[in-house]
Amino acid sequence: MEKIQVNIPGKEYWVYVGGDAYATKLGQSISRLKPGKTILISHPGIMEIHGRRLLEILHQEIEENIIFLFPEGERHKNLEVLESGYRFLFNHQANRDDVVLAFGGGVVGDMAGFLAASFMRGIRYIQLPTTLMAMVDSSIGGKVGIDLPFAKNAVGSFYQPEVVLTEPSLLATLPPREIRSGMAEVAKYGFLYDLNLLKELQDLPHEFETETPVFTGIVTRCIEYKARVVSEDERDVIGKRAELNYGHTFGHALESATGYKLLRHGEAVAMGMMIAARISELASIAATDLVGLHRKVLLPLLEGVNIPEDISMEMVESALESDKKRGQKWNFILLESPQKVRMMSSLPKRVLAEAIAETIADVRMCVK
Amino acid sequence: MEKIQVNIPGKEYWVYVGGDAYATKLGQSISRLKPGKTILISHPGIMEIHGRRLLEILHQEIEENIIFLFPEGERHKNLEVLESGYRFLFNHQANRDDVVLAFGGGVVGDMAGFLAASFMRGIRYIQLPTTLMAMVDSSIGGKVGIDLPFAKNAVGSFYQPEVVLTEPSLLATLPPREIRSGMAEVAKYGFLYDLNLLKELQDLPHEFETETPVFTGIVTRCIEYKARVVSEDERDVIGKRAELNYGHTFGHALESATGYKLLRHGEAVAMGMMIAARISELASIAATDLVGLHRKVLLPLLEGVNIPEDISMEMVESALESDKKRGQKWNFILLESPQKVRMMSSLPKRVLAEAIAETIADVRMCVK
Repeated sequence: MEKIQVNIPGKEYWVYVGGDAYATKLGQSISRLKPGKTILISHPGIMEIHGRRLLEILHQEIEENIIFLFPEGERHKNLEVLESGYRFLFNHQANRDDVVLAFGGGVVGDMAGFLAASFMRGIRYIQLPTTLMAMVDSSIGGKVGIDLPFAKNAVGSFYQPEVVLTEPSLLATLPPREIRSGMAEVAKYGFLYDLNLLKELQDLPHEFETETPVFTGIVTRCIEYKARVVSEDERDVIGKRAELNYGHTFGHALESATGYKLLRHGEAVAMGMMIAARISELASIAATDLVGLHRKVLLPLLEGVNIPEDISMEMVESALESDKKRGQKWNFILLESPQKVRMMSSLPKRVLAEAIAETIADVRMCVK
Repeated sequence: MEKIQVNIPGKEYWVYVGGDAYATKLGQSISRLKPGKTILISHPGIMEIHGRRLLEILHQEIEENIIFLFPEGERHKNLEVLESGYRFLFNHQANRDDVVLAFGGGVVGDMAGFLAASFMRGIRYIQLPTTLMAMVDSSIGGKVGIDLPFAKNAVGSFYQPEVVLTEPSLLATLPPREIRSGMAEVAKYGFLYDLNLLKELQDLPHEFETETPVFTGIVTRCIEYKARVVSEDERDVIGKRAELNYGHTFGHALESATGYKLLRHGEAVAMGMMIAARISELASIAATDLVGLHRKVLLPLLEGVNIPEDISMEMVESALESDKKRGQKWNFILLESPQKVRMMSSLPKRVLAEAIAETIADVRMCVK
């Protein structure tokens, strides 16, 4: 088992990665935290597959465990589920002695984390990520929250977990498209910090074998990068954590323009990074063949993506514009070359439009 | 003007107290924070009386100021208003460059503070308290949040303001009963930390003159105690901040038993402290005539309180019990003598019952 520390002053915690993370560390963590009870927050799908093993471990440690389930999917990360979560916690007499377990992907982690952050002004919680995306990204760093209609993650807080337990072997039951989507975030760390990681990613077998040491090693390296960045810049104020949004501004615009249905988050981010690479070349800040590298790494991850004819460059641009109107400062995160980030606060509209149009056409043409 | 620092590591801020706090410090604070825009959160009643002056100061400093108003009263500190607040902030493109101004009493401060804490994972805010209760207590220390049905302050966070500006002269327009209610919190600091403060409180003229140096001095001293306590124990973990709940466990039970309508918060706390003093004597931990002192200070603050015949000791006890069932640990904060706190985790039921019954009878008999 690997362990990685997140070093936020006053809020240090460990991420344990490996096939025995739950068996070795869950009971231990709970007995260290001495909760009155544990509150498991998850969704029915994941409980059906992996719930039994988790509950067996819990029952050895703690007398009272209550379970709050809500349906899968980003559209349930909303105020209504939040309110029913509060009511559940209240009715079950949850309090600051208790511990929440967030068992699921990014949506579960965000919702459970924000419930924990805001119920009784904060109860402790543990992240138990079950998707690749959650393992390498959202379970670490304490960004928790919910969406408002038309505004992703508009409500939330920075609230760090007590510990994160990551078992890559859980991914064996995930659909391949879900894994590929998570791999886009892996690739992001590669472009930003680690060319070798990109190479390893490309060398993985087509149907990822998630229980190999190589795969666990890749997950661990991503966690190390994430832990390092959030340790330096927990609250996203010095521009370091912002780097992790590489591809995300465009990705969000693509998700929004396609109604959050067509693209998985990671797929949108993959296309967003391809757009960013094209911008680097069009704006002549790219020192190497960025587009070629991005296409080589990312196009395989987009397998199965189908951009319909009625999604146009204009829709993506208008989603970008509305992002800007909401006062989100546009900070385009670009690369000069891999591992060399360049922030740009504005870009010629023509460059944006061309990069978006070319990327959409490229994906339409080359992805099957 | 007085200034008091709240010294929470990494979150230091000043409380300015005096008749010129707004004129001198509001413009200055805003120009230091350089917000994109300011977002004034208040209720219609206070805006009618004091809004014009505030807006004049704001208009000198900032181009865009948006205003979110919600109705007065604890029952509006709920999820519905929170949600409409989020929608307001989103529709007005509020973002992390902006600054929220919480202009009102405890309800406005709690709601505006939690909106600020949770919208876009936290935007900065300034407390502008307009009631005595908010000035000496709730505007300092960052406890913000909302109520759930039947659970006061069940949702919220610890989120510190950038600065607190306190003008005791605003209280001149407050009904005397509101001032007396706030004076119960002043008395609380006296019992806990400062016998002289109790003497000064008793020497105040019957109809408080809120614009005198004596009155401002009293407010300032309370702020100093509150600032000291929250600086030592922001998150209520070492038992120090818990002391400030003196009288509150019983006070909340009284508020709950009377449907949150009959008693103002401070009145309930005053009666709660009288109950605590009786318990100290009944449990033989009181070294002095605590009941006599509490009656002398607090009975005058209860003027106008009318406990109806159908409120019984049993109702208060059952409210206390339901508090306990919710997993709130009972930590009875008692005094051995003024300035000498003694925490008790359990008490004989008979002692509790007797203290509650005697206090209710006492208030029924002696308050007109």
